[in-house]
Amino acid sequence: MNYNKIAAALGVVLTVIGVSMVLPLLWSLYYGEHDWPAFLICSGLTTFIGIAVYKTNRMEEGFNTKEAFAVVSFSWLLAAAFGSLPYLLSGTFTSFADALFETMSGLTTTGASVLTDIEILPHGILFWRSLTHWLGGMGIIVLFVAILSTLGVGGLQMFKAESPGPTAEKIKPRIRETAKILWYTYLSLTAAETLLLLAFGMPLFDALCHTFGTMATGGFSTKNASIGFYSSPWIHWIITIFMFLAGVNFALHYQVFRGRSLKAFWRNAEFRLYAFLTAAAVMITAANLAVKTSLPFESIVRQASFQVVSIMTTTGYATADFDGWPLLSKALLVALMFIGGCSGSTGGSIKVGRILILIKQAGMELKQSLHPRAVMSPKIDGKSIGKEVLINTQEFFFIYVAIIGVSTGIMAALGLDLGSAFTAVIASLGNIGPGLGKVGPVQNYNFISSAGKYYLSFLMMLGRLELYTVLVLFLPSFWRR
Amino acid sequence: MNYNKIAAALGVVLTVIGVSMVLPLLWSLYYGEHDWPAFLICSGLTTFIGIAVYKTNRMEEGFNTKEAFAVVSFSWLLAAAFGSLPYLLSGTFTSFADALFETMSGLTTTGASVLTDIEILPHGILFWRSLTHWLGGMGIIVLFVAILSTLGVGGLQMFKAESPGPTAEKIKPRIRETAKILWYTYLSLTAAETLLLLAFGMPLFDALCHTFGTMATGGFSTKNASIGFYSSPWIHWIITIFMFLAGVNFALHYQVFRGRSLKAFWRNAEFRLYAFLTAAAVMITAANLAVKTSLPFESIVRQASFQVVSIMTTTGYATADFDGWPLLSKALLVALMFIGGCSGSTGGSIKVGRILILIKQAGMELKQSLHPRAVMSPKIDGKSIGKEVLINTQEFFFIYVAIIGVSTGIMAALGLDLGSAFTAVIASLGNIGPGLGKVGPVQNYNFISSAGKYYLSFLMMLGRLELYTVLVLFLPSFWRR
Repeated sequence: MNYNKIAAALGVVLTVIGVSMVLPLLWSLYYGEHDWPAFLICSGLTTFIGIAVYKTNRMEEGFNTKEAFAVVSFSWLLAAAFGSLPYLLSGTFTSFADALFETMSGLTTTGASVLTDIEILPHGILFWRSLTHWLGGMGIIVLFVAILSTLGVGGLQMFKAESPGPTAEKIKPRIRETAKILWYTYLSLTAAETLLLLAFGMPLFDALCHTFGTMATGGFSTKNASIGFYSSPWIHWIITIFMFLAGVNFALHYQVFRGRSLKAFWRNAEFRLYAFLTAAAVMITAANLAVKTSLPFESIVRQASFQVVSIMTTTGYATADFDGWPLLSKALLVALMFIGGCSGSTGGSIKVGRILILIKQAGMELKQSLHPRAVMSPKIDGKSIGKEVLINTQEFFFIYVAIIGVSTGIMAALGLDLGSAFTAVIASLGNIGPGLGKVGPVQNYNFISSAGKYYLSFLMMLGRLELYTVLVLFLPSFWRR
Repeated sequence: MNYNKIAAALGVVLTVIGVSMVLPLLWSLYYGEHDWPAFLICSGLTTFIGIAVYKTNRMEEGFNTKEAFAVVSFSWLLAAAFGSLPYLLSGTFTSFADALFETMSGLTTTGASVLTDIEILPHGILFWRSLTHWLGGMGIIVLFVAILSTLGVGGLQMFKAESPGPTAEKIKPRIRETAKILWYTYLSLTAAETLLLLAFGMPLFDALCHTFGTMATGGFSTKNASIGFYSSPWIHWIITIFMFLAGVNFALHYQVFRGRSLKAFWRNAEFRLYAFLTAAAVMITAANLAVKTSLPFESIVRQASFQVVSIMTTTGYATADFDGWPLLSKALLVALMFIGGCSGSTGGSIKVGRILILIKQAGMELKQSLHPRAVMSPKIDGKSIGKEVLINTQEFFFIYVAIIGVSTGIMAALGLDLGSAFTAVIASLGNIGPGLGKVGPVQNYNFISSAGKYYLSFLMMLGRLELYTVLVLFLPSFWRR
C-alpha cells in the first residue's frame, strides 16, 4: 500500500468536511447564536489540516483494491471524528462517545440520536446535524470522485466500496461522470423537495434540514416530535413521497430526468419489488390499525404510509409512536428493517436488490430439488444472475444476520433488554434509527453506556459501507507487506 | 406420480405407528390405569388401516424424486394425525389442535407442550408422548427403509428427504444397510443411557421416557419441573452428556463402535466446531451466572452446561428457568437456537455443518474482495465445498430466516407479544421446545389459539424435514401431470 497516496486522499476528504462547516457557521451568524465560534474554529482547523495533509503527501493516479478499501474506511472514520468537533466545542455534548455517535449516525444516515431535547439546540448545530446526513447520503467518496479527476481505476474501486447494493452500476463509462450525475440528481431532488415544503408552509431552515434528512434517508429532525410536529397532512405526504423516491436507484431517476418515460421505473425488477413490498406493507398496516384502533380513516392511511415508507427506506422519521401500534404492525415494521431501499439509492439495510436475488433463488432451489439434474439459473430483468454475484449476495445475508446475532448478545451484556438490544442493533446496522422498546421512536439512545455507543457507531459504519469494506480491515493479510 | 405406490408406502408407515402403540398399552395395563382401552382401539385401528391400505395398493421398486417427497411429507402428516388419537380417546385433550400439536411436537422432537400439568397423566399417555420422540428422532422413514427391502433408488431419495443436514452421507453403499446401522447405533446409545439412569436411581419408566427425550433431542419429560425434578447432580450430568452425544453425527458414533479410535470425532471439522461452540457457550454462560447471581460454583457449571447443551442440541430439557437468567446468557441461548446439532444427528435447527460452511465462505468472501481475480473455494476436512452445495446451504439459511420473519408476524397477528412470538417460532421451526417469555421453559403453549397451534405444528414439520421436502408440495409444478 502507498500510504502517501492514501494520506493525500484523506486530506481531500477532510477539506470537504471543513469547507462544509461554513454552512452551519452562516446559519449561526444569521441567528446570532452562541455556536458560531465553534464552527469557525472547527471549519478552519479541519480545512487547514486537510489541506496540509494533502499538500505534504503526493496524490497519484490509480488506487489498488486494498488502497481503495483503506481510503474509504478511514475517510468515514476521520469524517466522523472531525465532524464531532462542533458538538464538543459548542458544548452540545461533553462526552466524545456522544458526539461521535451523533456524527456517525448523521453521516451514515442512521438518524439515531443521543439527544434528549433537540429543540433547545442552536440553529448552527441543528443544521450541521442534518448536513451530515446529506453529505453521507450520496457518499463522501462519491462526491470526492465527482470533484477530483486525478483518480484512475481506483476511483471505481472506491466508488464500489462505498456505493450501496450488490452491483455498482456505471451509468457512464467514466466513473467520474457517473459520480457527478448521481450528485446532480441528488441535488435536483433536494431542491424540489425543499421548494415543495416551503410552498406548504414550512420555514426555510426546517425545510432544508428535513429535506436533507429525507433525501439521505437519514431521519434527524429539528423537532422533538419529528415530523409529527407538523400538523399539515400535505407535509406528511410530501415527505412520504420523497422518502420513497430517495429509496429508488438514482440511476433510474437520472434516466427519467434525461427524458426516458416513467416506464423505466416499472421495467426494473428491483423497483417493482420495492413498490410491491411498500404497497403491501401499507395495506396490511392500515388494515391492522383500522381493526385495532379508532383512528379516522385519513389518519390511518397517512400514518401507515408514512411509517412503512420511513422504515422501509431506513429513514426513521416518525409521525406516530409506532412502538404503541398493534403487534402485527410492529412485527411487520421490524421485518421491513431487514429489507431497506433499492441498490444505488441512499437507503440502507440489506437492499431490495439482494432480497430479490435471494427470493428468485429460493424458487429455483425448490424447482431444482424436484429436478436434480436440470441446469437452472435465476434471471432478473431477462439477465441470468452470475454464480459469483449469487454466492456473494447469499453470503452477505448470512454475515449480516450473524453480525446482528453477535451484536444483540453484546448489547444485552451491556444491559439492554433483548427486544431493545435486538432492534437497536438492526436499527444501527441497517442505518434506520429508531427501534422498539427503550430505543423506540419517541425514545433516544442516550441511556446506553459509552461502550455501547461506540459499538453501535461501529455498526452504523459497517452497515453504511456494506460490511466488506470495513471487515477486510480486520484480516491480518490486509496489513501484510 | 404413482399414487398406488405412495399409498402402499403410507400403509407401511401407519402399520409401524399402530404396532408401536402396543408399548404404551402394555404400560397402561401394568399400572392398571384407565387409558388402556384408548390404546387398544387406536393401535388396532391404525394397524388395521395401515395393513388394509398396504394390501389394497401395489408396492413397487423405486421411487422417483416427487414420489419420495410425497411419501415423506404425507408419512409425517399421517403419523401425527393417527398419533393424536390416543390423546383424544383417553380424554387427555378434547381439542384436535391440542392433540395434533402435542403429537407433532413429539414426532419432530420439538418437545413443546400444551399440557399445563404433566404429572396427572396416566403412564400409557406419558409413555406414548416420549415414544413419539424416539420414533421421530431417527426418523420414521429411516426405520421404514431399514425394515423394508423393496425400495430401489427411491429409498435414497426418501432417506435424503428426511435426514438432517446438508449432505446425507451413506455409510454403506446400500442405503438399507446405512439406515439399519443408524438405528442400531441409536438403539445402543438408548440402552446405554437407560442403564446409566437406572444405575443412578431413576425408576425404569422415567429412565426410558427421559432417554427417549434425550436421544431424540426431544425434551418431553414425565415431570412438570422437567429434569429439575431430580435432585441428583449425576442425573443432570448423564443427561447433559447424552444430549451432547445425540447432537453428534451418528455416522461418527458408528465408526467408533466399529473400533475406530476416538480421534475419528476430532478429525471431523463439524464435530470440532460443535464442541468448540458448546464449550465457549458454557464458559460464557457460567461466567455470566457467576457475576450476576449468587449460585454456588458447582451449580453454576452444571446448570450452564445442561442448559447450553439442551438448547444447542435442540432438546429443550430444563434444570433451571433460564428465562430468569441474566440478559447475556438469554441472548446467547437464543443465538444457539439458530445453530442446532450436527448433520446426521437427531438435533434440529440449521445444523452446525451448514454454519461451518457459511463461516468458511465468509472468510473466503473477505479474502476474495481483496483479490477479486483469484480463484478461491472454501475447504472442509481437506475437501472443497462444491458450488452447488454452497449455494444450497446459503439459500437454506435465507429461507430459514425468512420463514422466521414471516412467522413472527403471523404469531404476532394471533396476539403473541413480539418476544414470545419470535422465540415460539424459532423454538418450533428449530425443533427446540421452550422459548422465552410466555413460551419460556416453565411455561407452555396452551394459551395459544387453535390457529396458532396448527401453524406452529406446521413449522415443526417444516423444520424437521429441513424445509425443502415440505415446501416443494406448495409448488404448482409438483402436482402437474
